[in-house]
Amino acid sequence: MTLIPPLDNTAMAAARDRQSRLTKPAGSLGVLEELSVWLAGVQGKCPPVQLERVQVVIFAADHGVATTVGTSAYPSSVTAQMVANFVAGTAAVNVLARQLGAKISVVDVGVDSDYEGLSVDESVWAERVARSTGSLDREDALTSAQLDAALDLGARRADAAIDSGYQLLIAGDMGIGNTAAAAAVVAALTGADVTGLVGRGTGIDDQTWMRKVSAVRDGVFRCRDITDPLAVLQRVGGSDLAAVTGFLQRAGERRTPVLLDGVISVTAALVAQRLAPGVRQWWWASHRSTEPAQQRALAELELNPLLDLQLRLGEGTGALLALPLLRAAVATLAEMATFEAAGVDGPNS
Amino acid sequence: MTLIPPLDNTAMAAARDRQSRLTKPAGSLGVLEELSVWLAGVQGKCPPVQLERVQVVIFAADHGVATTVGTSAYPSSVTAQMVANFVAGTAAVNVLARQLGAKISVVDVGVDSDYEGLSVDESVWAERVARSTGSLDREDALTSAQLDAALDLGARRADAAIDSGYQLLIAGDMGIGNTAAAAAVVAALTGADVTGLVGRGTGIDDQTWMRKVSAVRDGVFRCRDITDPLAVLQRVGGSDLAAVTGFLQRAGERRTPVLLDGVISVTAALVAQRLAPGVRQWWWASHRSTEPAQQRALAELELNPLLDLQLRLGEGTGALLALPLLRAAVATLAEMATFEAAGVDGPNS
Repeated sequence: MTLIPPLDNTAMAAARDRQSRLTKPAGSLGVLEELSVWLAGVQGKCPPVQLERVQVVIFAADHGVATTVGTSAYPSSVTAQMVANFVAGTAAVNVLARQLGAKISVVDVGVDSDYEGLSVDESVWAERVARSTGSLDREDALTSAQLDAALDLGARRADAAIDSGYQLLIAGDMGIGNTAAAAAVVAALTGADVTGLVGRGTGIDDQTWMRKVSAVRDGVFRCRDITDPLAVLQRVGGSDLAAVTGFLQRAGERRTPVLLDGVISVTAALVAQRLAPGVRQWWWASHRSTEPAQQRALAELELNPLLDLQLRLGEGTGALLALPLLRAAVATLAEMATFEAAGVDGPNS
Repeated sequence: MTLIPPLDNTAMAAARDRQSRLTKPAGSLGVLEELSVWLAGVQGKCPPVQLERVQVVIFAADHGVATTVGTSAYPSSVTAQMVANFVAGTAAVNVLARQLGAKISVVDVGVDSDYEGLSVDESVWAERVARSTGSLDREDALTSAQLDAALDLGARRADAAIDSGYQLLIAGDMGIGNTAAAAAVVAALTGADVTGLVGRGTGIDDQTWMRKVSAVRDGVFRCRDITDPLAVLQRVGGSDLAAVTGFLQRAGERRTPVLLDGVISVTAALVAQRLAPGVRQWWWASHRSTEPAQQRALAELELNPLLDLQLRLGEGTGALLALPLLRAAVATLAEMATFEAAGVDGPNS
């Protein structure tokens, strides 16, 4: 069991005290005030410093179930093509990252492609741990060695970002079929009914949705005898979910805050919290997606998302959309005048 | 009756078409896609240009009911002191505006102060239409002349901003007692029960809340024989609510989009929509505040807010917090690659 360091209670108390003295009715900035207290706690500093250096690590992987069963509206070829799109800087996550001054790093942890005809440098796929996964409805998604390698790759990517001085991390994802794997993991870990956890993913029709439910149910059945979160990841997860799990856990171990994204990110967060209880305090949920498995995992983690904009893209886009709120939380706590300094009368007594 | 120009349907259709060709599952950017279509419609251009020039006009005014009845947790002296805080650049709205590159303009439309000992230039209060208002529970808030002057001042401030090239406007507010006036206006216009519309404002205790409900109920009773929105503004509104009404209406007349803020902004929006049906299409709601009158007015206007962060500060802060989402909507529509350009396969057929 990993020991997760606590947030800095002294800095959080100082942030709460400062919030009460700023020129606004107490609590009137709502969730922004809670965010500012959290950021003081993770940085151990009041006021916290501004979040200038933010990194999105996009973990890309394919999923066997998308090919064998057909659970997605898109062919698996799209995963590698989107990796090339990230590298070219023209996907949604690139546009948002540029606007916000965030850095993107793309990691192929398990894409089923040679990138023939695509401009993707070997550094992106050099550490790939698998090519796609076993079809979760009938066989283990990963071997034990692949699982370990993916967890380790994710942890090392967190280390690299933290060692480079990034102050806030985001785990993005890309992978045709990954919402089926996420739903299976959430169902296996929570015991929730599969039909209520399987969403429309990329926008599938009713027939595809029924096939997807059936495949996820078969996968969850294959997990009926296990409770170990790592065993669940191996049987019905995937290399992306494992890598994000390792990434999130390492970030917490190293006192680095993470803004969670959509269903892949939050599912991995649920696994990481089971593996390292308490690590959830180092994360904040950015948005509620339309994927029911994400909503269920958020509830299990007792995390309240900042946004609810019917997003279901992944890539880290939801987290980037919430980033300005964190920056606003830092700025208001740091820069607003106090009642005393501004000569503003306090409440009637 | 003012004629409100329609949005540009051609530009909106072009934006919808472009969204369907960008490298993401159709609809996966959720509300962001709707926002991008709206911005194309208000600008008459696809993709719309980025919202670089944004102005927040803060309308400050006092309200007699705060002094006679005592409906606020703060003394009325705070209104003028906060005007000085805005001028000094150290209030929450200033911090957020600086971070986002938005401009702030402060207009004293009815503050009850000579600003003795405060650094507030005469230009801020030179066009003031009243000093505070009549206590809405027992007398008209404004004279007919004051009402007209406030509506006109708001409209002229919209003109000035639009003539200066601002692309997006925000109406902020500051005024001890203003949530009581807003609740009275919303109750008089919608017929909703007063107890369900009166909120905690700046954070009042139960005793103050009961006094506030009683005062608002008396004010609404004084409006029982009228349906004209302007007559309601005059009897139980205030100079700030009237100025914001004029501001919002003029913006729509001049094809300029507005991001609505909290209860004052949205209450004035309800009045403006009654005066000029259809003008609501030129606005987007930024956030759901904790004030029930704001929530009721949003529902009447059929506007869905972008954020729900338990904000209740006013000043324009909620609208500024939502501004990055509008900018993200513009950027993604304008800069993302299409499936064709990126060589990414489309959905299975």
